[in-house]
Amino acid sequence: MQNPAEELFIRHQDILNNAIKAIHAREFYAQYPEAPSGKIYGEDANEKQQTLFQNQLGKEFCGLLQESDAVITSSEVSPYTLEKLNIEYPVSKQPETYVTRAGKALSQWKQTSAAVRAGLLIESLERIRNRFYEIAYATMHTTGQSFMMSFQASGPHSNDRALEAIALGYQELTRFPGEVTWDKPMGKFNVVLKKFYKTIPKGVSLSIGCSTFPVWNTVPGLYASLMTGNPVIVKPHPGSVYPIAIVVAEIQQLLKEHGLDVHIVQLATDTLEKPITKILCEHPEVKLIDFTGGNAFGDYVESLPGKVSFTEKAGVNSVILDSFSDLKGAMQNLAFSVSLYSGQMCTCPQNIYIPKSGVTVNGETLSYEHIISELCAAIDALTGHEKAGPGTLGAIQNPTTASRIQQAVDTGAKVHLASRAISNPEFPNARIATPVVLEVSKNNKNIYEREWFGPIVMVIPTDSTDESIALAKELSLSHGAITCAAYCTNPEIEEKIATEMADAYTTVSFNLTGPIWVNQSAGFSDFHVTGGNPAGNASFTNPEFVLKRFVLVGMRSC
Amino acid sequence: MQNPAEELFIRHQDILNNAIKAIHAREFYAQYPEAPSGKIYGEDANEKQQTLFQNQLGKEFCGLLQESDAVITSSEVSPYTLEKLNIEYPVSKQPETYVTRAGKALSQWKQTSAAVRAGLLIESLERIRNRFYEIAYATMHTTGQSFMMSFQASGPHSNDRALEAIALGYQELTRFPGEVTWDKPMGKFNVVLKKFYKTIPKGVSLSIGCSTFPVWNTVPGLYASLMTGNPVIVKPHPGSVYPIAIVVAEIQQLLKEHGLDVHIVQLATDTLEKPITKILCEHPEVKLIDFTGGNAFGDYVESLPGKVSFTEKAGVNSVILDSFSDLKGAMQNLAFSVSLYSGQMCTCPQNIYIPKSGVTVNGETLSYEHIISELCAAIDALTGHEKAGPGTLGAIQNPTTASRIQQAVDTGAKVHLASRAISNPEFPNARIATPVVLEVSKNNKNIYEREWFGPIVMVIPTDSTDESIALAKELSLSHGAITCAAYCTNPEIEEKIATEMADAYTTVSFNLTGPIWVNQSAGFSDFHVTGGNPAGNASFTNPEFVLKRFVLVGMRSC
Repeated sequence: MQNPAEELFIRHQDILNNAIKAIHAREFYAQYPEAPSGKIYGEDANEKQQTLFQNQLGKEFCGLLQESDAVITSSEVSPYTLEKLNIEYPVSKQPETYVTRAGKALSQWKQTSAAVRAGLLIESLERIRNRFYEIAYATMHTTGQSFMMSFQASGPHSNDRALEAIALGYQELTRFPGEVTWDKPMGKFNVVLKKFYKTIPKGVSLSIGCSTFPVWNTVPGLYASLMTGNPVIVKPHPGSVYPIAIVVAEIQQLLKEHGLDVHIVQLATDTLEKPITKILCEHPEVKLIDFTGGNAFGDYVESLPGKVSFTEKAGVNSVILDSFSDLKGAMQNLAFSVSLYSGQMCTCPQNIYIPKSGVTVNGETLSYEHIISELCAAIDALTGHEKAGPGTLGAIQNPTTASRIQQAVDTGAKVHLASRAISNPEFPNARIATPVVLEVSKNNKNIYEREWFGPIVMVIPTDSTDESIALAKELSLSHGAITCAAYCTNPEIEEKIATEMADAYTTVSFNLTGPIWVNQSAGFSDFHVTGGNPAGNASFTNPEFVLKRFVLVGMRSC
Repeated sequence: MQNPAEELFIRHQDILNNAIKAIHAREFYAQYPEAPSGKIYGEDANEKQQTLFQNQLGKEFCGLLQESDAVITSSEVSPYTLEKLNIEYPVSKQPETYVTRAGKALSQWKQTSAAVRAGLLIESLERIRNRFYEIAYATMHTTGQSFMMSFQASGPHSNDRALEAIALGYQELTRFPGEVTWDKPMGKFNVVLKKFYKTIPKGVSLSIGCSTFPVWNTVPGLYASLMTGNPVIVKPHPGSVYPIAIVVAEIQQLLKEHGLDVHIVQLATDTLEKPITKILCEHPEVKLIDFTGGNAFGDYVESLPGKVSFTEKAGVNSVILDSFSDLKGAMQNLAFSVSLYSGQMCTCPQNIYIPKSGVTVNGETLSYEHIISELCAAIDALTGHEKAGPGTLGAIQNPTTASRIQQAVDTGAKVHLASRAISNPEFPNARIATPVVLEVSKNNKNIYEREWFGPIVMVIPTDSTDESIALAKELSLSHGAITCAAYCTNPEIEEKIATEMADAYTTVSFNLTGPIWVNQSAGFSDFHVTGGNPAGNASFTNPEFVLKRFVLVGMRSC
């Protein structure tokens, strides 16, 4: 090992090995601390990078090294200020140009070894680590996430998920020996062959981002494809380009430093008015597509012939309430889960199934109405809290999401808790609304069987917990689900919930109280989306997520 | 571990561990010796099982335990005697019944542990081992393979491929821990969750067999699905039911002995006149489909929405002749490869690319014409040999395959070696034909770009080895290829062939001479089909082949 790219592998080998170990242990592990702490990330990092963020607004984006023949002004609008970011991004007028350049870069990138790729890609994470604050401000002012969430989700948690993809990719690429002697006894003599095994990338990879988690949802596929030798075209959501542009720029810079084609990764920005995604998807050279977003487009991506797709679409997440030992803790936990980032998470609960006959709390029966009022009170207390309220809710990314609250009310469902506007003193113009809590009859499946993205909660009274389980399972199988939260103190019922929801390929979190929520998915431990129900066909990060990106080809020689 | 099914796991744990080790070492390994030796398989095994075979003809098939409401008489005809086997197989009149029963069996089978499944399935291989001779005669008289090939391919080589699928399935099912404690430091306190991980089967699995390799091509998918918890409906080719019926019967017997639903595996025999395959394929409960056969049906299977498919279709296999150190050895090897089982192998060479300027043998140039005459002479010598000829060629499974030889000649291609009928003294009625060697201009791509299944060889004169490589690569990418044989003594050109063909996801065998042929694919070492080009989307047995059959679902609990 001589050249600088190979030296990076040696330098980062411990990070790689620890990550591979962590993936298989599935215990708590984090390479990048989640606290936005000056001690960890530099005492002046916040201030300096906030200035960088401010200086970037209204100007051409700094740092991308890819060729371009035009610039477009971003569609990005801060949900906190409602002002346009007015950043200009370099683009190629003809979308095909991205594919042509990626195809050219493929021939170079595929020749690098797994070690060189792993070293370079981990180094890119170390560079990105130095920009966590700028990424956080960019995320905050494109997605509406709070600063804390923006920092954690787009910074350390994203880097951890990227490292997970690198590590599992490296392991699978090196799982079988590069070369062996095959020595077959034939009785009086042996047949001896030299066999060698190559790992050939599938081809040009396309990564289609979403507006709410522009980094966290993009980097697993981006790094999985790069690790396995596939150049990637990153097509961000027009509403949230800046955060992932930083990631692409850092990787390009590193590629350049090591004499590699910067077009191994490209940013293909477009606008809401003139989208280019379908042109890229349907290009015959594009072989891999990662997609996060709505069902209609996701189904289209999955149906494209000759492509391998990795989708995370929408699901209808459920909550099953049966019995409690700590009702207050449970209601506070649930209130936080439905309020966090105003329900704009694919993991956020939507449908809460409660038996009409009530639930039990340490053996005592509490009425259905009582539970609802406890839940509404907990939401009200959290969102009405001067500091915690705005900090939890963040802002609503998209006006369509905000207007969906009224649409839900217009279904005629009974309103248990109305959505209200609260003020965020720091950002008086912020688009904010607290969750609405509606009651929907189990017979109105047409209402609650679909995802109501945003701060919209639907309580469905059921005949029994068995019926709650059956409805949650049915909707997971027919419409998809990414999470299920259950509160249950009876081990037999808990076992039944786990079994039935597992059969619907839906993860369940039981009896969460305290500072851990069903919405969260931890790198190295939790598989995000199972890939088994209509909410998506891929999982962060199971072995399939990396394996489907390359092909094992064996060679034999006498 | 108490019950008999769990005891089987303990009994067979060494076999399992050795197989897992072998898969990852990829050196020579075989659990089941390939020689039909009385010392290994029992001195009277051949005679006894030949009698069993004879006694089975014209009668209802013995041993299947599945429910049935009718019997059908098999379409099986011996390519050696041209007589019908007239075996009656129990069937269900309504194809949906198979799926209903499989769905019911799923709920039981999915609850068994990976260990119980592995123990049972390895035990089934040990039972099948005791029927290798009967399976061989059944294979011989349905496929036309020689006795030796029938024994090896449907017996030990199939069992090895089945074991490979069991072992890799077991490893992936147990790759992540069943339960862990997740203990996250939060500064002043820790958040502690119990996490557990389930492996949930995808659902009912359908395995569609082919007429030429009814066992070898079926058992990898069959055992991969069973190992990962999916019940399997085996839909054999109507022309070759008997060999795989024995496998199904042995598994059913074992399931019954252990108190499990015999419908965890079912045989769904149909006839050429009334096929049921599409009805089964399109049933919404069928989630996994393994298919071996032609492109039209394979493409249909791959296009079915909501299914995971594993296909092995047709390809156009190539031979690149450049330079030799042992011309005679090479020509004999190639002659055997194109004659073996009359070219009725998906791995058999078809297109032989030779530079018009000739090739070099130890530095000396030999003309294009000379090489062709050497090849034709080698084929003639082999197939004309009284004993080796019939033993190598076997018989032609299907009259359509036999008539394809004349169709190839009718293209107007120049005939270098005509196909001729030779006699097999043991089976005077056998359908036999030696390979035809045709010369096709590189410009007549419409002729040589498609598979000519059977004893049909096409020589394509090229301008250079570079052009030979380019044509072979192009056809691999556009029409698929499973193998490539290359003869080349120049390391640089060898490297180029390996690189270019790997980029077309095609395995290459270099400079084979002696008793090892490009057609062969060794369990535990060779990946059969890469899954990367149009010849098929699956590979025996790479990790994807088992992983796509189940879903990892994580659960969390406070």
